[in-house]
Amino acid sequence: MNLHLAVDAGGTSTRCVVLDETGGCLGYGRAASGNPISAGPALAAYSVAEAAATALTHAEAAHGAGGADVVVVLLAMAGASSLSGPELFAAELAPLGVDAPVVFAPDLLATFCSGTWLPAGYALVAGTGATAVRVENGSVARTADGLGWLLGDDGSGFWVGQRVVRAAAADLDGRGPRTELTSLVLSQLGLEDDGTRHHGRPAVLDRIIKLLYSQRPVELSRLSPLAFAAGDDPVARAIVSAAADALVHSLEAVADPGVTGPVVLGGGTITQHDELAARIAAAGTRDVQVVADGAVGAAVLALRQASVVVDEPVFDRITRTLAALR
Amino acid sequence: MNLHLAVDAGGTSTRCVVLDETGGCLGYGRAASGNPISAGPALAAYSVAEAAATALTHAEAAHGAGGADVVVVLLAMAGASSLSGPELFAAELAPLGVDAPVVFAPDLLATFCSGTWLPAGYALVAGTGATAVRVENGSVARTADGLGWLLGDDGSGFWVGQRVVRAAAADLDGRGPRTELTSLVLSQLGLEDDGTRHHGRPAVLDRIIKLLYSQRPVELSRLSPLAFAAGDDPVARAIVSAAADALVHSLEAVADPGVTGPVVLGGGTITQHDELAARIAAAGTRDVQVVADGAVGAAVLALRQASVVVDEPVFDRITRTLAALR
Repeated sequence: MNLHLAVDAGGTSTRCVVLDETGGCLGYGRAASGNPISAGPALAAYSVAEAAATALTHAEAAHGAGGADVVVVLLAMAGASSLSGPELFAAELAPLGVDAPVVFAPDLLATFCSGTWLPAGYALVAGTGATAVRVENGSVARTADGLGWLLGDDGSGFWVGQRVVRAAAADLDGRGPRTELTSLVLSQLGLEDDGTRHHGRPAVLDRIIKLLYSQRPVELSRLSPLAFAAGDDPVARAIVSAAADALVHSLEAVADPGVTGPVVLGGGTITQHDELAARIAAAGTRDVQVVADGAVGAAVLALRQASVVVDEPVFDRITRTLAALR
Repeated sequence: MNLHLAVDAGGTSTRCVVLDETGGCLGYGRAASGNPISAGPALAAYSVAEAAATALTHAEAAHGAGGADVVVVLLAMAGASSLSGPELFAAELAPLGVDAPVVFAPDLLATFCSGTWLPAGYALVAGTGATAVRVENGSVARTADGLGWLLGDDGSGFWVGQRVVRAAAADLDGRGPRTELTSLVLSQLGLEDDGTRHHGRPAVLDRIIKLLYSQRPVELSRLSPLAFAAGDDPVARAIVSAAADALVHSLEAVADPGVTGPVVLGGGTITQHDELAARIAAAGTRDVQVVADGAVGAAVLALRQASVVVDEPVFDRITRTLAALR
């Protein structure tokens, strides 16, 4: 039996699928971040091997097939090409009996292939970051944004979270309108405005500064749900609206009238807030689908890497059998 | 002879003035950053002592008065009150023969007092960061912004520089309009767009990312002059215009109709670009003055700390005699 090991390595968690050449998923495993940029290369490789070990144990117990039957390992991850190479991952997988070529794929392509077996269309992912791609002939043909919190990621979780805390800070020091976000931010940060002032502004601002500058900037992404939780607060509504506009804008930047495939949406900022997906769908004329992650797509890409044709029946089998394992 | 040691400790450099009780400046010295937040406490104290040593050597050679004659040390610096205390600075000054109380003052107050001897008015400083204050009875009565690059500093050098590089990145990946800023940014970063593309976008974007994420975020402030250098480029014009609006907005947030004193402007982002000062002046009805730094103001505050009345003639003497030393 030929097995295919497909890994969707994200900034928060890693998912691994073991599947046969008909698209039947035999094992599934999860681990911590397998992304070398966010976790560091060593920890990333360790997480990938951990998720793979669980998936292979699964497959072996149920089907009697293990690491030695793997013919290809596909790793879907952001920024894969800027890394030194696949050797580090191959070395961590070797103790599992896996002795197969390790191939990288862009995470956005895995997201796209999680939503469709078609060879062309679009993917838009907004988690902590945000990126849009156009896919043609099964490859990424065009990319917009995905430049990180400092230089881009318009409409991402960081982008929303930073606007949330800046709006709260502007409210507190009298530069911005009153907003519900202020009490929500203080509550989430475990702080309280006790009325004390320092140089004529609330002293709680100094505590917000001390707290947030001691964290990594991307942690502001954790404040992004407050924008959606603030009801009809006009400041919060404006942030959500601007985020939707920014995401639609990135999608439009990669659009080509000749490429009519579907738009696949992913990433926590979109998947946890139906409103964003609805607004993105309403802005265009293409078929829009939301996917939880890139696990199905990584499985699709693993089969294609082994020259298996993934058509609608195979795609449906992957989706159905993987859902049963999760 | 009673001497007063006045220090204006900024994020880029430190200035020290030694003056007598009539407002006559006898010595002046400069050193590297004396701000504990940007330089660290130990280096900050070292820089303050270095600037003081130069100023005292000056005063001793010309007037025969030295460290032992100092009756008060005034340190004007940002975030002074959040530090542990003046002991560190006193210890570094002791080898110079200085055995006098060390007192902190807000840097914005020193900027204000560099422009006027009046006890009330406003100061607006935009360097790497941006802060506005209202001064009443010689103290800071109200503060807006100054929250740092992540949470505020609207209209600051960082704020402008980040918009400059984000506009260039958006141009390169097709999300934003063409702008002159792109070639200016590439040139300043020592990069070139050789036409190579990676996943359907210019490969030079990967090099920009690698370069700028390896620096401290505030370094983006160094790109801010490009917004002013891009002529009538509409993207650059919009950034400068938004910066002016943001600075005016912070100033308005601290305004009180009952406080009619002057507006003193400082910080490199304003002082190096006449346009910003002109726009801020045009937005209000108050008298606007631009000062190079907080050295005169620190001298004013040092005298007041020693209960010397600083009126117009004393203020003029400080300004005139310090200018002659620089």
